[in-house]
Amino acid sequence: MKNRVCELFEIKYPIIQGGMVWCSGWKLASAVSKAGGLGLIGAGSMHPDNLRHHIISCREALTENGVTLPFGVNVPLLYPQIEEIMEIIIEERVPIVFTSAGSPKKWTSTLKGHGVKVAHVVSSTAFAVKCQEAGVDAVVAEGFEAGGHNGREETTTFCLIPAVSSAISIPLISAGGIATKAQYNAAIALGAEGVQIGTRFALCKESSAHENFKAHCRGLKEGETKLLLKKLAPTRLANNSFSFEVVEAESRGATAEELNALLGKSRAKAGIFLGDLTEGELEIGQVASLVKMEESAEEILRELIG
Amino acid sequence: MKNRVCELFEIKYPIIQGGMVWCSGWKLASAVSKAGGLGLIGAGSMHPDNLRHHIISCREALTENGVTLPFGVNVPLLYPQIEEIMEIIIEERVPIVFTSAGSPKKWTSTLKGHGVKVAHVVSSTAFAVKCQEAGVDAVVAEGFEAGGHNGREETTTFCLIPAVSSAISIPLISAGGIATKAQYNAAIALGAEGVQIGTRFALCKESSAHENFKAHCRGLKEGETKLLLKKLAPTRLANNSFSFEVVEAESRGATAEELNALLGKSRAKAGIFLGDLTEGELEIGQVASLVKMEESAEEILRELIG
Repeated sequence: MKNRVCELFEIKYPIIQGGMVWCSGWKLASAVSKAGGLGLIGAGSMHPDNLRHHIISCREALTENGVTLPFGVNVPLLYPQIEEIMEIIIEERVPIVFTSAGSPKKWTSTLKGHGVKVAHVVSSTAFAVKCQEAGVDAVVAEGFEAGGHNGREETTTFCLIPAVSSAISIPLISAGGIATKAQYNAAIALGAEGVQIGTRFALCKESSAHENFKAHCRGLKEGETKLLLKKLAPTRLANNSFSFEVVEAESRGATAEELNALLGKSRAKAGIFLGDLTEGELEIGQVASLVKMEESAEEILRELIG
Repeated sequence: MKNRVCELFEIKYPIIQGGMVWCSGWKLASAVSKAGGLGLIGAGSMHPDNLRHHIISCREALTENGVTLPFGVNVPLLYPQIEEIMEIIIEERVPIVFTSAGSPKKWTSTLKGHGVKVAHVVSSTAFAVKCQEAGVDAVVAEGFEAGGHNGREETTTFCLIPAVSSAISIPLISAGGIATKAQYNAAIALGAEGVQIGTRFALCKESSAHENFKAHCRGLKEGETKLLLKKLAPTRLANNSFSFEVVEAESRGATAEELNALLGKSRAKAGIFLGDLTEGELEIGQVASLVKMEESAEEILRELIG
């Protein structure tokens, strides 16, 4: 499994745990990094002070005899306090940053100037090429089947990875629809050199998601997630009362304003972190229907590399 | 490449050419079968008499020294003259039938009683299990990225194939998003024993689609197809004036009745067969953006098995 992704991030296996809102705290990130993958803290759901706490705790958990295993932070670039977030990341000497939801031009050179390795998440080949031009070290290309925020073009992992792979020369990490060893192998066959796994880690023991959320998602059958809110930011959600309301609103042609009003604030926190299965927004990938067991991050890694 | 799909259909390579409306006549089907794959005639766009002509011509093209290479017919079970179509298939001793768009229970035993091998096309695991129970010989599982008519659950090839593979024991053929050797390998890694390729064959020399259609589709960039008409039968179309009209209508919440009126009759024929790029319905898969060259069916097979 040794390849450029392993060398770049100084990890044993080219398996990255997605930095997901309300799931990816220091506990999950450090468990994945300890098991030989790359753990990412999800800054998207953290106040700056809380992010600093998670970075410090993650480093502590990963340090033994003065040696610290690699870990990273995922930063959605549309985050309102982005300047403060980046300052903390640089101050705390975070070795790796995955950026998403914004232009890779804005922060890549600043981060790299401070010795940070940078990967950027995209959902199209055109954007992957822009990332390479902006000087990022690696690209994560994420297909339509992925959970949470998603691309407008709806290109699936099967179509996206070969296209990106032939358009860029820097390492390519595949995301969207990957939970099993067979899917890992398929992603590599398509031209990726590593995988980013969200859903399966979101539902594992060390994820900070609420038990209600985890149990609900582990019980999902095939076809029970849907890409919704396309007039705002396309987001893949598990079926629940709230998602059905959105389906109904979109079916009758609700405008972006109406959808915004329906969405309100803090629904992802309510659903994922507080376990409100009725009114919460349950962000999860299509592959959830293949995840049935409560596992530890280490068990997941072991199964993937076995 | 030898496996159960090859044994079942008595073919050299487990590569099936989709039986697509307005593309898959006897010329395409016989070219694919001659090259060692399995060619399918697409009955969905043929009057019964015309289908009989294509079957006879296909058999003729595939017979040498009294030996006939295998070929098949794809039959959408919702076809209005379905009884007549099935009668012709049985009379003309077609060795293989791929059924789709309907229940596998209805025709499987009749066909098998006449020595016909039967595969059924599905877009979900639940339906794949029903196919196995109905006694079909193989299942084609088709992901969201596929062209033309498509499933309601929007499950992608990446998520669908592993799920179906673990739910059935009969041979599984993967469809949707497969055009290249890398994608073939990925489909096999996911658990398929064969692939059905539509888009790449729809755009090749022997396809009966209009040159305008082929040139337009070969020029598509990533993201330039879209799954539309979801309130009727979800259908993946290439972007054009007609598809933009549908996007606009769906965005304002058009009902099934309104969409039916907008769609009218014979749009697929207009777009694919008559080459009307403005008003026609251009059914094609997401993977079209990876198909750039005018190739023969034989060249495609050679590249896939090379």
